[in-house]
Amino acid sequence: MEQSRLVLARKVSHYSTSKLSRKVSSMNQQINGLVLPPRIHYRRVAASAAPGTTTTTKSSKFDYDLYVKTKREAVSISLHRAFPPPLKQPETLKMHEAMRYAVGGGRRTCPIACIAACELVGGTQDDAMPGACALEMIKASFCVQDDLPSIDDSELRHGKPTVHRAFGIPTALFAGTALLALGFEHLAARYSGDTAARMVAEVSRAIGSTGLLAGQAVDLGIENPDRAVELETLEFVHLHKTSALLEASLVAGAIAGGASEQEIEALRAYGRVTGLLYQIVDDVADATKTMEELGKIPGQDAMAGKSTYSTILGVDKSREMVGELLVEAKERLGVFEETKALPLIHLANHFANWA
Amino acid sequence: MEQSRLVLARKVSHYSTSKLSRKVSSMNQQINGLVLPPRIHYRRVAASAAPGTTTTTKSSKFDYDLYVKTKREAVSISLHRAFPPPLKQPETLKMHEAMRYAVGGGRRTCPIACIAACELVGGTQDDAMPGACALEMIKASFCVQDDLPSIDDSELRHGKPTVHRAFGIPTALFAGTALLALGFEHLAARYSGDTAARMVAEVSRAIGSTGLLAGQAVDLGIENPDRAVELETLEFVHLHKTSALLEASLVAGAIAGGASEQEIEALRAYGRVTGLLYQIVDDVADATKTMEELGKIPGQDAMAGKSTYSTILGVDKSREMVGELLVEAKERLGVFEETKALPLIHLANHFANWA
Repeated sequence: MEQSRLVLARKVSHYSTSKLSRKVSSMNQQINGLVLPPRIHYRRVAASAAPGTTTTTKSSKFDYDLYVKTKREAVSISLHRAFPPPLKQPETLKMHEAMRYAVGGGRRTCPIACIAACELVGGTQDDAMPGACALEMIKASFCVQDDLPSIDDSELRHGKPTVHRAFGIPTALFAGTALLALGFEHLAARYSGDTAARMVAEVSRAIGSTGLLAGQAVDLGIENPDRAVELETLEFVHLHKTSALLEASLVAGAIAGGASEQEIEALRAYGRVTGLLYQIVDDVADATKTMEELGKIPGQDAMAGKSTYSTILGVDKSREMVGELLVEAKERLGVFEETKALPLIHLANHFANWA
Repeated sequence: MEQSRLVLARKVSHYSTSKLSRKVSSMNQQINGLVLPPRIHYRRVAASAAPGTTTTTKSSKFDYDLYVKTKREAVSISLHRAFPPPLKQPETLKMHEAMRYAVGGGRRTCPIACIAACELVGGTQDDAMPGACALEMIKASFCVQDDLPSIDDSELRHGKPTVHRAFGIPTALFAGTALLALGFEHLAARYSGDTAARMVAEVSRAIGSTGLLAGQAVDLGIENPDRAVELETLEFVHLHKTSALLEASLVAGAIAGGASEQEIEALRAYGRVTGLLYQIVDDVADATKTMEELGKIPGQDAMAGKSTYSTILGVDKSREMVGELLVEAKERLGVFEETKALPLIHLANHFANWA
């Protein structure tokens, strides 16, 4: 575990909170020669939780469940409206049905993170929504591909048959690629020039051959039960396969909300840590939860002899690591006002409590 | 054939050359209240070829082969430099190798069209190059997907084993998606805000569920040998599967070169017609050429009982239609100076002569 923490620490060390504080503070004072009241307060947010615990922030009355429910509904409505009218051919109708089916379930973590980041930096839900929808489409596109027989060969996702099981492999391939294209179209067409270009660059880099896809490729490579997998490799997989898209969601939301570079980098660091946390929790859940709780068949990784955090470190040590990452995730939000950061604090808490 | 021409005519009728001429002429005179010398001359370009003939433009000394060779080399060098340094894991190295392999062959039609359009409207090769590379990546991504066992199950492309035959299906899937992501990253990161956003919107729409992917889905649907396929359906497939990306390549190049809306729409209409022409030629070639000439196994469509222009209309009538479309393609370029339009005139000629 120490090795892994070192790797992570090395990777995110340039986002040091104190260094960041000085930069932002200095910037705030320099704008137009005026000494402005600082928009960002550098109070540490709930960073005192001991490693291994998964306590929630007690100082707030924030209703996380209601927040998530409200955002989830808003995202679903916007997603529904985001699809172009299908053409009349039966094959194109089927592809559109498969696209809608693919985005029909799920926890909406990426879009909620996108909206929360946007609101945190002073933007609105409306500012974030096209980006939020785009990210859900892009995430769904990767789920469709990941579930294919040649990759994970999954039968179920979100408690429903996977897209290729419901529509056949060719339609799944077409629908997956179409969702990716529609996601980028949404980013490019629904934001003004510089904002759109930056969001597309951010998201495309996050999912590309040095991002999400690198994580997926290595993930598939380590499925060989005879291969000894080091924790560093597993961390690489999780940081690329999961953190990359969460990071991009937060950064896209921040860009949509007009964030400063410092705010963007704080959210990026939070996303990186929280994504890793989430994936370790997912590894633990696969070993400890029921099919009903998971919405998919549990224990598939272990049965396939695949290395996960829980098989390498064990469930207890994995949970301990989740606690440490939770502390770090909250520290990264220390540059923001605590009340405004509550949705993202609770998002990390929520993930951690699932383990 | 008449039915098909009517369909096409209906679709491109709003690009009427004479209507366009009036608009551009009026715009040119209105800029800053000055009567400017018109930048665009409305001389008709080689539009007199009779239907069914595939003559080249005789008035020029333009060396099309040299032009294509030079552009092809420039694109290949830029493509080589356009890939990010791979990460160190064997799986990511393999994915990068597959990505380079996927863009390693081919005629570079899309990037050459992109550069030619950019130069035609007053831009430079350098202005167009990031877009040209992006379009070749995106095209390659679709070739990888199209060749998969679940879709066309192709063994060869450009005379080499297809990506999934050379690298396995999972790596082909990852590399294909990574090429798509890298293409969009290239557009977004290498152009300034408004230009980038417009190019991404144009290209993503062209490849999406109402564009290229609609064509691919319907194309697969009509492979059933028991299904009676109308010419209108075949035209839908070709306009979406082939014209869409050629159109987007020309429009992207035009945007990169700072084209007027009228220039963009003229190039769009030319791309639409030329893409259809190309695909009919491809259908004819599949029935008439050798494996050496094609770089792939000929007669696959006919063996599978799939409808093509040559099986529905016959080779002679298909060639006649190619001649008619060639005339129309050249007419669409009538808004430009003939000498500047030579590369695109010859591109259409070159396609037509292959039939």
